[in-house]
Amino acid sequence: MNHPASFDPEEWVIDSNDRTTLAIKIKERLFYEKSPYQTVEVFETCDRGKMLTIDRMVMCTEADETSYHEMLVHVPMQTKPEVKNVLVIGAGDGGTIRELVRYENIETITMVEIDEAVVRASKEFLPTISCALNHPKLKLLIDDGIKFVKDAADNSYDLIIIDSSDPVGPSEGLFTKSFYQDVYRCLRPDALISVQSESPVFNPQAFKELNQCLKKIFGKEKVHCYLVFIPMYPSGIWSLTCASKSDLNPLDFNRDRVLKFIQKHSLSYYNADIHISAFALPNYIKRMIGEE
Amino acid sequence: MNHPASFDPEEWVIDSNDRTTLAIKIKERLFYEKSPYQTVEVFETCDRGKMLTIDRMVMCTEADETSYHEMLVHVPMQTKPEVKNVLVIGAGDGGTIRELVRYENIETITMVEIDEAVVRASKEFLPTISCALNHPKLKLLIDDGIKFVKDAADNSYDLIIIDSSDPVGPSEGLFTKSFYQDVYRCLRPDALISVQSESPVFNPQAFKELNQCLKKIFGKEKVHCYLVFIPMYPSGIWSLTCASKSDLNPLDFNRDRVLKFIQKHSLSYYNADIHISAFALPNYIKRMIGEE
Repeated sequence: MNHPASFDPEEWVIDSNDRTTLAIKIKERLFYEKSPYQTVEVFETCDRGKMLTIDRMVMCTEADETSYHEMLVHVPMQTKPEVKNVLVIGAGDGGTIRELVRYENIETITMVEIDEAVVRASKEFLPTISCALNHPKLKLLIDDGIKFVKDAADNSYDLIIIDSSDPVGPSEGLFTKSFYQDVYRCLRPDALISVQSESPVFNPQAFKELNQCLKKIFGKEKVHCYLVFIPMYPSGIWSLTCASKSDLNPLDFNRDRVLKFIQKHSLSYYNADIHISAFALPNYIKRMIGEE
Repeated sequence: MNHPASFDPEEWVIDSNDRTTLAIKIKERLFYEKSPYQTVEVFETCDRGKMLTIDRMVMCTEADETSYHEMLVHVPMQTKPEVKNVLVIGAGDGGTIRELVRYENIETITMVEIDEAVVRASKEFLPTISCALNHPKLKLLIDDGIKFVKDAADNSYDLIIIDSSDPVGPSEGLFTKSFYQDVYRCLRPDALISVQSESPVFNPQAFKELNQCLKKIFGKEKVHCYLVFIPMYPSGIWSLTCASKSDLNPLDFNRDRVLKFIQKHSLSYYNADIHISAFALPNYIKRMIGEE
C-alpha cells in the first residue's frame, strides 16, 4: 500500500472541507470551463468511471451516481406513483431525469438548471447519465431555479426535486427558507418533494439547518430524512430528504410494485428493503435533528 | 473551500488504495511505535477526536468508532442474548470489549490480540475506547489469534468476534479458509460469529473472497452481510458479517429488549431499526456476493 504525501493535480482530484479530504485518482481531464457561475470539469478516473466536478466538488462518478439518483427519484415516486407533473431544480448531469422517465404516467418534467455548461459537458462526456436530457416529456430551461419557483403558479406540481450542489456559489439560495416557501406554494395539496440535504458528517451545519428549515415549512412530522452510501462523496454518508404537503409517508409504498419495477429496470442501488432501510437513522444523527 | 494539492505528513494522515484516498487533518502525533508486527500510531485529529492507525490505515477515530463497535457487538448479542462465553480476535483498541461488558449475562471474554503495542497505545491515549480492557470478565492474551483458535477446544464459545485490521500484515491469516474452519470448530452448536468483512467499494476483492469463504464453511443461507456508515474509513461504506452455526437469523430479535437496552446505555449508532436496516443491501452489492 502506497501513501503519497503529495497529490499532483494532474493525477488527483481533491474534495475537501479542510479537515477531511477525499482524493480520487484520475487518468485525464476531459472537460474544463469557467462558466459565469462556477468551474465545471469532467475527468476520467482510474477506477470510478468518468466524474463531473463543480468547483472541484464531486457531483457524480459513473460508478456510484446511481445510488444518489435512484434514491432521490424512486423513494418519492414509489411513495406516490400517480405523479404527473414534476419540477426539477438543478440536475444538470441528467441522472435524475433518466430515473424519472422510467415512469410512463409522468406527463411533464420541467427542469431548471442555471448553468448550461453542466448540461453541455454531461451531454458530451457522460452519456449514460445524461441520456434522457432530450426526452420528449422534458422541458429543459437554462434559468435561475430560485427565480423560477418565485414566479411559478400555485399548486402546479405533484413532485418537486431539488438536485443541487453544495450550499456555496449559485446553489446557496437553494438552502433558504424563502426558496422553500415558494416550493411549498407551488406544490399541489397531495404533492411531495425530495431534496439533496447534505452530509451529516461532512457538512453537519448545512444538514441541520436545512432539516430545521424544511420542518418549519412542512411541519415536523412531514419531513423524513434518509441516508445513502455514496463512496465518492467525502465521508461516504449522504442525506436526502422527502417531505410531503399532505400526510404521505414515504414508508408506505407497495412492495409488489417496487419488485416489478426493479425487475423491469435492473437498478443498481434501489430496492424495497433499501427504500425502508434508508429512513433508519443512527442515534447520533437523530440527535442532530431533534428526532430522539 | 480550500483545495490543498500537497499533504504535509505533519498535518495529514493518508489512507489510500492508490485510487481513492482519505486524508484526515491532524493536530499532532501522540504515539508512534514500530512493533514487531506493524507501525502503531495515535493522532489528535482536528475534528474527529483521537485516531488510531496501523501502518497508516485508520483503525478508529473517537468520533465514529461507536458505529463499528456497536454494530459488530450488538447485532449478534441482540440476536442471541444468552451468550455466556465470547472469544474476540484482535480488538486491541478495546471498543469491542467495552460494548460486550454491557451484557451482564456474559461470563467470560477471551481476547487474543497479537500486538501489545496496540493495547498499550489505546490504554494510554484512547481511554473512552479502551475503558473495559481491565474488566474482571476479560482474559486478555497477547498472542497469535490464528494459532489460538487452532489449539482451542471444540465447542467452546457462544460467540466469536473477528475484529481485525485489513488483510495485510499480521491480519492476512484472518481472511483464510483454514482460520475459519478452526473458528467453526470452536463454536458451540447454536453459536454465531461477527466479523469485520471489509468495504465492498474500497476493498472489493477482499470483501467478495471473505464472503465466499464464510459461505463455504457455514453454508450459504447462514451468512448475513450487513453495512455500516463509517465516515473515517475510506469510501465510508463498510461491511460486517454475522454467521451462525445453527439457524439463528440476525433479523429475528426482540425489539422491546433492544429498546430497553438502548435507553439504558445511550448508544451512539445502534438501534432496532438500524439493526434491521443494515442487512438491506444495494443491488450492486447483492450482485457482488451472488445474492440477487
